[in-house]
Amino acid sequence: MRETIGFAAFGPGEELRPYRFERRDLRPDDVAVRVTFSGICHSDLHAVDALPTGGDPFVPGHEFVGEVAAVGADVTRFRVGDAVAVGNIVDSCEVCPACRDHREPYCVESPTTTWGGIDRHDGTTTRGGYSAEYVARDRFVHHLPAGLDPAGAAPLMCAGVTTFDPLRRAGVGAGDRVGIVGLGGLGHIAVKFAKALGAHVTVFTTSAAKVRAAHDLGADAVVVSTDDAAMAAVGQTLDFVLDTASGKHDPSPYLRVLRLDGTLCMLGTPDRYEPEAMALLGRTMTLSASAGTVRTREMLEFCAAHGIVADVEVIPLAEVNTGFQRLANNDVRYRFVLDVAGAQVAA
Amino acid sequence: MRETIGFAAFGPGEELRPYRFERRDLRPDDVAVRVTFSGICHSDLHAVDALPTGGDPFVPGHEFVGEVAAVGADVTRFRVGDAVAVGNIVDSCEVCPACRDHREPYCVESPTTTWGGIDRHDGTTTRGGYSAEYVARDRFVHHLPAGLDPAGAAPLMCAGVTTFDPLRRAGVGAGDRVGIVGLGGLGHIAVKFAKALGAHVTVFTTSAAKVRAAHDLGADAVVVSTDDAAMAAVGQTLDFVLDTASGKHDPSPYLRVLRLDGTLCMLGTPDRYEPEAMALLGRTMTLSASAGTVRTREMLEFCAAHGIVADVEVIPLAEVNTGFQRLANNDVRYRFVLDVAGAQVAA
Repeated sequence: MRETIGFAAFGPGEELRPYRFERRDLRPDDVAVRVTFSGICHSDLHAVDALPTGGDPFVPGHEFVGEVAAVGADVTRFRVGDAVAVGNIVDSCEVCPACRDHREPYCVESPTTTWGGIDRHDGTTTRGGYSAEYVARDRFVHHLPAGLDPAGAAPLMCAGVTTFDPLRRAGVGAGDRVGIVGLGGLGHIAVKFAKALGAHVTVFTTSAAKVRAAHDLGADAVVVSTDDAAMAAVGQTLDFVLDTASGKHDPSPYLRVLRLDGTLCMLGTPDRYEPEAMALLGRTMTLSASAGTVRTREMLEFCAAHGIVADVEVIPLAEVNTGFQRLANNDVRYRFVLDVAGAQVAA
Repeated sequence: MRETIGFAAFGPGEELRPYRFERRDLRPDDVAVRVTFSGICHSDLHAVDALPTGGDPFVPGHEFVGEVAAVGADVTRFRVGDAVAVGNIVDSCEVCPACRDHREPYCVESPTTTWGGIDRHDGTTTRGGYSAEYVARDRFVHHLPAGLDPAGAAPLMCAGVTTFDPLRRAGVGAGDRVGIVGLGGLGHIAVKFAKALGAHVTVFTTSAAKVRAAHDLGADAVVVSTDDAAMAAVGQTLDFVLDTASGKHDPSPYLRVLRLDGTLCMLGTPDRYEPEAMALLGRTMTLSASAGTVRTREMLEFCAAHGIVADVEVIPLAEVNTGFQRLANNDVRYRFVLDVAGAQVAA
């Protein structure tokens, strides 16, 4: 086994503490990744809050970059020292229609998630990337293109793919009118993607304080969504709206700004959505997961070509609890990234 | 003005009574239709229940057939005596994107409905087809193909177009797996359409008593939706589900039987839909209205080619209140149609 060290939560809502644990010995198709930067995602926070009492220590982290430390006997795509990136899925069934189409997040047998998943071979529970080393199947490890800042690239592996995939599936291109709801970790990068794809971008935010920031990111228009007159003035003009807001909220206003046949794509997952029926008339609503392996590679190439990374605030791994607290208060622009390689971790 | 006679409700939930009133004199593009058969739709019932107190007399009816009684000076598509059909829309703005695309139900200025609408020229409130004569703009009057039983054809103009349009927009064709939720006025004709389009059809019903009827209509499979095991056995196999159930219900089970990228199309309109968020993962949900003018003509030709009409129970216009009561109790297979031409109406 390969000993490593990370930060774990030991109970619901508890602060994370240093934790020494073992990764599996490399299987023939495994890659060991020495983690350098690991992003803090809202779902890390939610998972800690929702932990069962008395369960296994929980190591968050599902968007990280690093270097290949070792490879299994059959691995040909990677060599020790390669810069790589890992996202929120590390295995899937490979045989269902979704997997055959390289859309592994929609695997009908459920994909193996990077933390809290059950390994398909040894039945162990996966532990995430707030740790010095991660071991993953080579299919779910991706080359990190040269030229991308590693810290800014880490959030691409969750916030990035999760927003890039629905924009691409919707065929967003030059001249399309796209709305982005929310300007957090996901929203800010969605604005960059939509602009790079050539769209006219309208940002919807509940916070008047974010109007300037939205324009700075490239938004063509910004609407404070609590301003009914401003919302009505948008008309039924948008082709596609990507709703990145994580809390429960009424999607109806974002359906009503869509043209006929327009699509509202949700990314947050409350228990239920509750749109007004008439707001869905002639429009569609969907929920998108993260992206599959092929799209993830496409996104990384797109980011390299367009110079896109997340706007991040890098903090030492040892300050993860401060990061969690500030994220819970929406006090970050736009993503915390943990400096794992540079951390002085004492178990 | 043209005097006519029909049945009207004079207050919320009241029984309908004979009512003598005037239709407008023909404008140059108007057609006067002598109504022969007029279907009873759930929304007629709901509209009467929801009437304001002290308002104008309300004449229901928005799916009817008849003969042309007179034409305006500029009308060229119709001659006196032509067999015609009228649905639930009688005018629209003509200039918005939806109207230019002949999808008038989605007119951004709101279409003029056959009853309860505001005429775009004289501002009067439209009165429906439970009446001896109706006057409508020629664009919204359709030739009734020869060979279609007129009584069975009347419901095609609402129940028919409302189910035909989403099936066609979804591109349903040979070998597609389609689900139809509910086996009432809309559902039974949706089964006929889906079968005629070549699909494998699964009917979902809450009533075990309807299983045989669904098979008789051509369904390949019937699932009693309260049977969790039977629902689970469907798997994630359907390409498209058309939900014709009018009462408020949880759409989640009908999302979960869809394959990746499958669509659930709702036809009923409660205040809000409340699907479980995760049931929408990788699937879409929409609400469809009735069909525009071009699709309506396509449907009528399709029905003539495939010998499709609604299964109806014809009752005299004077028995409309009995029909309403029985429809409220779901006691009809599958649509009541009022015999208007044969009625002895005494005002």
